[in-house]
Amino acid sequence: MCATTEQELRQYPLFRNCSDSFFTDMANDAHVLKTSKGQVLFLHDDPAERFYYISSGWVKLFRETLDGAQAVVDVFTRENIIGEGALFEDNIYPYTAEVVESGSLISLSLSILNRELQSNNQFTNDMLGFMARNKRQKDKEIEHISLQNAPQRIGCFILGFLNKTEGEATIHLPYDKTLVASRLGMQPETFSRALGKLKVSTGINVKGATIEVSDIETLVSFSCVACSAEFPCKELCSKC
Amino acid sequence: MCATTEQELRQYPLFRNCSDSFFTDMANDAHVLKTSKGQVLFLHDDPAERFYYISSGWVKLFRETLDGAQAVVDVFTRENIIGEGALFEDNIYPYTAEVVESGSLISLSLSILNRELQSNNQFTNDMLGFMARNKRQKDKEIEHISLQNAPQRIGCFILGFLNKTEGEATIHLPYDKTLVASRLGMQPETFSRALGKLKVSTGINVKGATIEVSDIETLVSFSCVACSAEFPCKELCSKC
Repeated sequence: MCATTEQELRQYPLFRNCSDSFFTDMANDAHVLKTSKGQVLFLHDDPAERFYYISSGWVKLFRETLDGAQAVVDVFTRENIIGEGALFEDNIYPYTAEVVESGSLISLSLSILNRELQSNNQFTNDMLGFMARNKRQKDKEIEHISLQNAPQRIGCFILGFLNKTEGEATIHLPYDKTLVASRLGMQPETFSRALGKLKVSTGINVKGATIEVSDIETLVSFSCVACSAEFPCKELCSKC
Repeated sequence: MCATTEQELRQYPLFRNCSDSFFTDMANDAHVLKTSKGQVLFLHDDPAERFYYISSGWVKLFRETLDGAQAVVDVFTRENIIGEGALFEDNIYPYTAEVVESGSLISLSLSILNRELQSNNQFTNDMLGFMARNKRQKDKEIEHISLQNAPQRIGCFILGFLNKTEGEATIHLPYDKTLVASRLGMQPETFSRALGKLKVSTGINVKGATIEVSDIETLVSFSCVACSAEFPCKELCSKC
C-alpha cells in the first residue's frame, strides 16, 4: 500500500521537486480512504492536520452563509489536492469538503508538507506558481460571472471538458446538474433556462448527463466572445 | 531619493524577511513615477520586466473581452504592489493597469524580486501566504457575486472602509461610482437601483462621493447575513 501511495505522490506534478525524505515520510504516514457520496471530509473552521490527494471520485468545497445558503467554492476530481490551503489560514480549514461522487483519497500530513515548504525552496516556488495559477482561474471566474451571460458560462464549462478544438464531440457531465448550476453561481431554474438557450444558439444536444456538441467552433464563437482569453485557454476551462 | 525608496520598501510587510542586498539592489534600480489619471502602466499580454509599489493614488487592473467589454480585476491604492503576478505567467502581464487617481509609484525590478524568491525561502513562504490570502479574497468575492444581492454587495463594500464596528461613520468613496459598479461586477444602472434599495433598508445617506452610515450594526445585519464570514472579517472587505 505504502509503495503504491509513494508512487502516486511522486507522479503528482506539484511535488516534482520534493525531497526523497518527503515522499518516504508522507507515504509512511499516509492512509487511503474509500469515500462514499455525502461523506464530509472536513468542516469549515475546523482545526486542520490533514490534506487529501484525490485518486478518484469528486469532492466539492463549499461554505455556508449565515442565512443557510451554500457557496460552492470548487469541485475537484482525481489528481488534485484539497485542504492544503489550511496551512496559510492558521491551520484552520477555510471551507467544508464533501464527497459528491464516491472514490478514493489519500489522507496526508500537513506538517510534513509544511516542513518541505520550510526547507525546500524549489518546492516553495513550485507551490507559489501553483497558487498563482489558482488565483488567475478565480480572476477569470469573476470576469465570467460579471461579463458572460448564463448560456455563455455553461458553454465555457462544457468547452473545458473537450480534448479537441473543432468538429463534433460528446461529453458526460461529471456531476449532477444542480451542482453544475451551483458551481457556476446560478439558481437551478436559471441554469435550466440558460441551457435551453444554449441548445437553440449552438445546436448542442443534451440527454441526461450526456452532451453532444455537433460543432465545437459554433460553441466557441458563442461562448468565448465575452471572455478575455482565447480558446483553447491556458487554464482548464472547467475551473475558469 | 534612493534612501527614501529603500525605507519605503523596508516598511512593506510582505518584504519583512527580505535580505539587505535585496533592499539595496532594489532601491538602486528603482525609480519613482508621478502618475496621472488615465495613464496606462502596462498592457495585458505585454512582456514584463517591472512591477510597481503604489505610494499614493489608485490603479485599476482589468482585461478586455473579445467583444470589447472591460472586466475590472481589482482596484488598488497605496501600500500595495501590482504586476508581480507576471513572474508566474511566463513574464507576461496577466492584465492591463491604468491609473484612476493620480499619485506616485515606485517602479521595481521583477528579476531582483525573482532572485530573492529563488534564494530566500522565508520570503518565498511569505509570498505564498500573501498569494493564499489573495486567493481567499477571490473565493469570497465569487461567493458574494453568487449569493449576495446587489444592495448587500454594496453594503459589504462600504463596510470594508470602516475602521470601527458600531455607531455611526462617514466615509468617502475612493473612486467614481462607475468604477465601483464595475469592481462589483454590476452594470451602472443596477448599481444605482441597488444603492437606492440599500439607503431604504439601512438608512445610509449618500452625498456625491460621501456616504454617511447612521448605524453600522444595521448595515452589518443587512449585508453580512448572506456571507459565510462574520463582521469584522479577517480579509479587507473592500477587496472581498
